[in-house]
Amino acid sequence: MRSKQPHSLPTGGPGELALLRQIRSRAAQSSHGGLRLGIGDDCALLAPRRGEELAVTTDLSIAGRHFRLDWHAPEAVGHRALARGLSDLAAMGARPIAAFLSLGLPRELTVATGRRPAWVDRFLDGLMTLAEAHQTPLAGGDLAESPQAVADIVLVGAVPRGKALLRSGAHPGDVLYVTGALGGASAGLDRLAQLAGMAGAATARPRRPQPPRIPKKLAALLAPHLYPQPRIAQGLWLQRHGLASAALDLSDGLSTDLAHICQESTVAAEVDAALLPVHPGATLAQALNGGEDYELLFTAPADARLPRSIAGVPITRIGRILPARTGRSAITLLTPKGPQSLAPHGWEHFS
Amino acid sequence: MRSKQPHSLPTGGPGELALLRQIRSRAAQSSHGGLRLGIGDDCALLAPRRGEELAVTTDLSIAGRHFRLDWHAPEAVGHRALARGLSDLAAMGARPIAAFLSLGLPRELTVATGRRPAWVDRFLDGLMTLAEAHQTPLAGGDLAESPQAVADIVLVGAVPRGKALLRSGAHPGDVLYVTGALGGASAGLDRLAQLAGMAGAATARPRRPQPPRIPKKLAALLAPHLYPQPRIAQGLWLQRHGLASAALDLSDGLSTDLAHICQESTVAAEVDAALLPVHPGATLAQALNGGEDYELLFTAPADARLPRSIAGVPITRIGRILPARTGRSAITLLTPKGPQSLAPHGWEHFS
Repeated sequence: MRSKQPHSLPTGGPGELALLRQIRSRAAQSSHGGLRLGIGDDCALLAPRRGEELAVTTDLSIAGRHFRLDWHAPEAVGHRALARGLSDLAAMGARPIAAFLSLGLPRELTVATGRRPAWVDRFLDGLMTLAEAHQTPLAGGDLAESPQAVADIVLVGAVPRGKALLRSGAHPGDVLYVTGALGGASAGLDRLAQLAGMAGAATARPRRPQPPRIPKKLAALLAPHLYPQPRIAQGLWLQRHGLASAALDLSDGLSTDLAHICQESTVAAEVDAALLPVHPGATLAQALNGGEDYELLFTAPADARLPRSIAGVPITRIGRILPARTGRSAITLLTPKGPQSLAPHGWEHFS
Repeated sequence: MRSKQPHSLPTGGPGELALLRQIRSRAAQSSHGGLRLGIGDDCALLAPRRGEELAVTTDLSIAGRHFRLDWHAPEAVGHRALARGLSDLAAMGARPIAAFLSLGLPRELTVATGRRPAWVDRFLDGLMTLAEAHQTPLAGGDLAESPQAVADIVLVGAVPRGKALLRSGAHPGDVLYVTGALGGASAGLDRLAQLAGMAGAATARPRRPQPPRIPKKLAALLAPHLYPQPRIAQGLWLQRHGLASAALDLSDGLSTDLAHICQESTVAAEVDAALLPVHPGATLAQALNGGEDYELLFTAPADARLPRSIAGVPITRIGRILPARTGRSAITLLTPKGPQSLAPHGWEHFS
C-alpha cells in the first residue's frame, strides 16, 4: 500500500500518509496462512502451501457505474467491492489468502465532517468486516486522489494444484445446479432505486449525496443487493469433494453466465424454469437475467450425489448439460408454454 | 478478464466482448513459467516453483492525476502503467510471472475513428510491448465503462523464499547506491508540459485532446518520463548475489523514498550531493525530489563488492546509512556549503 508520483501538483501534508497509517493499522488486525509480508514494502509476499497453486482475480468498482454515492451506503460499497473478488475465488474452489485494494477518491470522501466519520472510514468498515469473516487480510494496494471514486479489488487465493473448478469442464449429461436463490440482488436494486427516488424528491439537492435510510422491514429485501454473501464455503466444499465438473459465480446473470460455461466447455444447456429457486420478491426475469447474485452455478455428473444444502445454503438442480449444437441458441428454457431459446441478457460494458 | 453487472443501464451489443476478445488474443501471444491458466475463467491460476514465494503489487493510474490525455501518447500511458508495477517487482528482486489489468474507459477511447486506431489499442500496444520485453503475460483483469480513464495494474512475481529485497534491512555502516541516473523523469515532464502548452496555444480547442508531437531531438530527453525502464535485471542480480541489505524503487523521489528506508529500517542516512548521478538536463533539485525515475535505491554492507554496472546500467555510490537519531531529520545532504537536512519533498495524495 503506497502512493506514486503524479505530476504538476504540489507537495507535502498529512493527508495520504494519515490514511495509509489508518489502513495499515486496520489491516494488521487480521492475519492468515499464506501472507508473509503485508502493507509497507514495495510488494506483499505470499507463500502458498506445498502443492497449492494461486488463483488471482481483479474487480473494478466505479462510482456511477457499479455503485452510486446517493444510493449506496459506504459500508455496502466496501462490502460489495470485496464480495465480487471473494466470489471469484469461491467459483474456483479457492481459499482466500490476501486482498489488495487500489483506491482512487475525491478528497471530500476522505474527510470527516463534524461528528460524521469520513466516507472512506465507513467504506473500509464494510470491506474489513467481510474480510475478517473470511479470514482475508488486506495485504497492500495503492491510493490516489481521483475526481471519480474508484476501487479495484484484487483477491489472491490458494487451491490444490489441478483441483480448481473451471468453466471448461462441463460434459453432456451433467446436471446443472445453483446455490441459494436467484434474482434477489436485482429485485433489491429496483427497490433501492425507488427509495432513493423518493428520498431525492423529498430533499431537493442535498449538499452531499446521501443514500436513503433503509426501513427495517425492507432490510431483508435489500440485503442480497447491498450485502451479497460470497459462497466461499460452498466452493471449497465442491473442490474438496471433487464433485463439480464446471463452476462459475453468477455475477452477470444466469442467462449470460451459463452461456460462458457453454462456450468454454463447448456444450449446450437446458434450464427448467419451474425448478429455478427464484428469490422471494423477485420475478422469473430477474432470476434469469438479473446480475450480482454471486451464487455459484455448477455442473456435476448425473450420478454425483449432491447434498440438499452446503454450509446452510440450499443446492438446487435447475437443468442439464446437452451436446453442443450449431446454428441454434446454446441455452433452452423449459416453460409451461414449451421450450424457448434463452439469449444472454446480462450486462455488457461499451454496448 | 471479465466484466461485472452495474445497474440501471441497458443491455446487449458487441462492444465489451469484442474488446475482451481482442485483449485475450493479444495476451495469448505471450506465455511464461508460472502462469497455468490465463484470461477466460473466474480467476487466473499461477504455479510458483518449489521454494518460491510470490510478490504482489498494485498501481493505480488515473487520467488527470498520473497522466493526461492531452500530454501523453496512449502508448506511453500503457508503458508507464506497467512499468510502475514491474518496478515494484524489481525492488523486491522478483521475476515477473503475470500482469493483470483493470481498465475503466470512456466509450470514445474504445472506438477507432477513420484510419486512426482506438486509444485503447495504442494503450495496449505500449503495455504489451513492455510486457513482452519482460516475458510477462497478461493473465486477467476487468473492464468497465468509466467517465474517467483509469487503469489499475497488478503484477505478480516470484522470488526464492526468504530472499526478497526488503526496505527494512539497512544497517548503520551500510553504503547507499542507486542504479542509472536521477531527475530525468522530472526534467522530461517539465519539457513535455512546455511542448503541450505550445501545442495547445497553436490549436485552440481540439475536438479530441491530442498529445503534442515530440520533435526527434527531444525524444531522448523525454524518454525517462514517457518510457521509464523498470530495473528487473538489476533487482534479480542483487537478489541472486545476496549483496543488498535493503532496496526500493524510486517512484516518489529520492528524498521521500530514502525516508521510507530510514523509517522501515530504523536508521538515518547521509547523501553526498557531489556523488549523485544527475541525469543530463536535470537539476539537483529534480534528482533529489523528482519522482518516477524508477531506478533502484539500495544499501549494501561496506565490504560488499558491487560492480560498476549491472546489465549495462551504472551503479553509483551516493552515501551511507547512519544510526537512527531522535529529534533530527533522518536524512542529511552533504553540500559544498556544508551538511543540510533533507526533508521528504516527493508527492503525496490528499495533501
